[in-house]
Amino acid sequence: MGQNLILNINDKGFTVVAYNRTTSKVDAFLAKEAKGTKVQGAHSIEELVAKLKRPRKIILLVKAGDAVDSFIQQLVPHLEKGDIIIDGGNSHYPDSIRRTEELEAKGLLFVGSGVSGGEEGARHGPSLMPGGSTAAWPSIQPIFQAAAAKAFGEPCCDWVGETGSGHYVKMVHNGIEYGDMQLIAEAYDILRRGLGIPNDEIADIFTDWNKGVLDSFLIDITANILKFKDDDGEFMVEKILDSAGQKGTGKWTAIASLEAGIPVTLIGEAVFARCLSSLKQERVRASKVISGPQKEAFHGDKKQFIDDLEQALYASKIISYTQGFMLMRQTAKDLNWNLNYAGIARMWRGGCIIKSVFLNDIAAAYTKNLELESLLFDDFFINAIHKAQPGWRRIIAQAVLWGIPTPAFSTALAFLDGYRSEVVSANILQAQRDYFGAHTFRVLPGKENAKLQAGKDIHINWTGRGGNVSASSYDA
Amino acid sequence: MGQNLILNINDKGFTVVAYNRTTSKVDAFLAKEAKGTKVQGAHSIEELVAKLKRPRKIILLVKAGDAVDSFIQQLVPHLEKGDIIIDGGNSHYPDSIRRTEELEAKGLLFVGSGVSGGEEGARHGPSLMPGGSTAAWPSIQPIFQAAAAKAFGEPCCDWVGETGSGHYVKMVHNGIEYGDMQLIAEAYDILRRGLGIPNDEIADIFTDWNKGVLDSFLIDITANILKFKDDDGEFMVEKILDSAGQKGTGKWTAIASLEAGIPVTLIGEAVFARCLSSLKQERVRASKVISGPQKEAFHGDKKQFIDDLEQALYASKIISYTQGFMLMRQTAKDLNWNLNYAGIARMWRGGCIIKSVFLNDIAAAYTKNLELESLLFDDFFINAIHKAQPGWRRIIAQAVLWGIPTPAFSTALAFLDGYRSEVVSANILQAQRDYFGAHTFRVLPGKENAKLQAGKDIHINWTGRGGNVSASSYDA
Repeated sequence: MGQNLILNINDKGFTVVAYNRTTSKVDAFLAKEAKGTKVQGAHSIEELVAKLKRPRKIILLVKAGDAVDSFIQQLVPHLEKGDIIIDGGNSHYPDSIRRTEELEAKGLLFVGSGVSGGEEGARHGPSLMPGGSTAAWPSIQPIFQAAAAKAFGEPCCDWVGETGSGHYVKMVHNGIEYGDMQLIAEAYDILRRGLGIPNDEIADIFTDWNKGVLDSFLIDITANILKFKDDDGEFMVEKILDSAGQKGTGKWTAIASLEAGIPVTLIGEAVFARCLSSLKQERVRASKVISGPQKEAFHGDKKQFIDDLEQALYASKIISYTQGFMLMRQTAKDLNWNLNYAGIARMWRGGCIIKSVFLNDIAAAYTKNLELESLLFDDFFINAIHKAQPGWRRIIAQAVLWGIPTPAFSTALAFLDGYRSEVVSANILQAQRDYFGAHTFRVLPGKENAKLQAGKDIHINWTGRGGNVSASSYDA
Repeated sequence: MGQNLILNINDKGFTVVAYNRTTSKVDAFLAKEAKGTKVQGAHSIEELVAKLKRPRKIILLVKAGDAVDSFIQQLVPHLEKGDIIIDGGNSHYPDSIRRTEELEAKGLLFVGSGVSGGEEGARHGPSLMPGGSTAAWPSIQPIFQAAAAKAFGEPCCDWVGETGSGHYVKMVHNGIEYGDMQLIAEAYDILRRGLGIPNDEIADIFTDWNKGVLDSFLIDITANILKFKDDDGEFMVEKILDSAGQKGTGKWTAIASLEAGIPVTLIGEAVFARCLSSLKQERVRASKVISGPQKEAFHGDKKQFIDDLEQALYASKIISYTQGFMLMRQTAKDLNWNLNYAGIARMWRGGCIIKSVFLNDIAAAYTKNLELESLLFDDFFINAIHKAQPGWRRIIAQAVLWGIPTPAFSTALAFLDGYRSEVVSANILQAQRDYFGAHTFRVLPGKENAKLQAGKDIHINWTGRGGNVSASSYDA
């Protein structure tokens, strides 16, 4: 990955010095992949630092964790005020927050950058999400934006925001990717198990969807995957164990949502769906003892149903991105970041797994209104959700009756129905909490009276017994 | 709470020494609440320790966090080998794991005990969930089981397991409580907004349910809450702000599930539902711009529908407890705890918020089979789920069409439908991950061939371009 990024940046006319603590790797790289380029090598940190123009811009591509800190520690004594250390690994954002603070205290600048696109992206154009010491941006902007993927004529890289925001946004990107993948898997399940459509025809449906609002890398590759046959002519996808792995960034996003108090339910369900899939043996055993509804043939309008499914997928995707951006907005508030939401959407339009035309519409929404409360307050998305709703509801109702799990479709709709409810049923929760634990409640606007005053924490003696019991151990 | 627990234990014939660093509180307590009892006072830690019989059993009821460590630090120099420190606060289980290890290294014993039931429980019988140094149990068992609530003739207290397991189980208890409350709120919402039933009639439905499989404290108090009227004759529940608070133990449980990789989806949705409820102003604004389905009158069989709803609530509750026990089982495996599952269910039958008849059935299932993989492998629950399914599905389908959010009902059903699926759609996820990131997959049993070998991590060159690309930055 490091080698490919070096070659990419070299191609754009910048002089790059390659360093690896295993110096033979540097020599091999210069003799082979970098032969004939202007890439230079360094055999020590001293040499690396000596060869760089000030302010020095040093990109680390090492394993997230201690290796990053250790490398930084080795570098720091050789650097001068204003030099820039960039971590391009998959670091967890709290580490990037800490590193920004530590290095700024030493007069250095730190950038934690999400890098998406893998080997191929690194070579030909990744999505780059840099955040950290804002003073570093003018120095690295020309390099980063030249190296990044281009989409719609613009670089898939812009300044994200302060301290750990670059890696935070990369984390949310990955969480959203979990969600997008889960939605596709649910649509596939409905087409395959529900309608009984063969894989190549499902591929055609995805190819068709890829010309509309769902136009995206993941829909595109899913069509390719579904068409792919093993040597014996059977569909490869039918031979793949249904037990999904995960590397942890989806889990990080779900945990960050819980910590921030933002209902990023779709990513949460996507992560849990992978967990459930990985209980393969347990599911196999359960399938022998727990039965579901009788399998019934579908007698409705198949074409309409497939159109409904497209709308269900699209609407759920809108909800997932709405939730992801709500999370970023809350975290920005909590950590005093000024996040560039339109820029984030633009960065994701190319070079990464979630690239899609849809991100253009998100960028447009945040460009129109920098202070947009959520995507569901933008006319484009309101209209899209209104259009999608009837079909989306029909799909979920049908899947529920069929016994096909749609945790992501369902949680997206539940979120919408909660979000658009002026009053939800949490009055019951508050009454219960006050009843059993004297946790108090507040009065609903318009219902105030002498006993129920606005802005006051109110406790009612529900039972007629006892008074204001303490709530010390009823932490619900 | 401490005072009430002292009086409770005193009533059971044990001699208790009360200590508080604010010694005037000790004097006031002895002069008032404890007057005429055998409770003794101590004005210093030295005095407290001197007055206790060995092995000393010291229960701390102080705020979770640093206060516990600080108190332990003050105690330790005065204690002798085999003495027992018990933390009865709401500590987070990792702290209890650490404290067990630290104190055992000093030859002391530590017990972290979940205590549920609040002031009233402490005085008249809490649910007690002690775990930690197993050697401590014989010394504290008579006291703990005497002080605990009794249900079905048995104490709501048994030994939970090693190190932090007592506080872990209390945490899961609280998470399950979030789930139970959310399920009730969803049932209420369907009756109120869906069927348009007035609160007092809903109260009657809950009262009726409380005579059947749903018989529980929370159903009971909800009936009382729904009947409760303000002085002006209006139902109090209609005046309560629909914005739920939380103290964090539900969130802890959801995070622990994500960390353990166990799909505890219902508690996750319950926590997120509270988060969404607390975005009150945003919801009010959203309700003005996003519309839902046209409100339609219900023309079906109301009685049948209410019976369906009871089944939906019951089945979802079974799923929630299934998930909670799966989480405990996985954590026990990860942390080498020998958890007493039947005992845990029995402990929760009285003295706490989730107390219910239903817990009897769980205790029976684990008593019948100590190694039960999950509740969904127990005949009683399999039958219950089979019976509930048709109505449960009808309820969710109807709520989806009505536009009433049922995140907990829906996620429970999605879990069931995934759990009972021999094959889920995660083959798509694995194919995508291998396609874009060479993450590899495994072959489905029965589909092996020379290229697709069992137990091997397989990568396919899906595109025909390039070879085994590295997956270093595609962490999906």
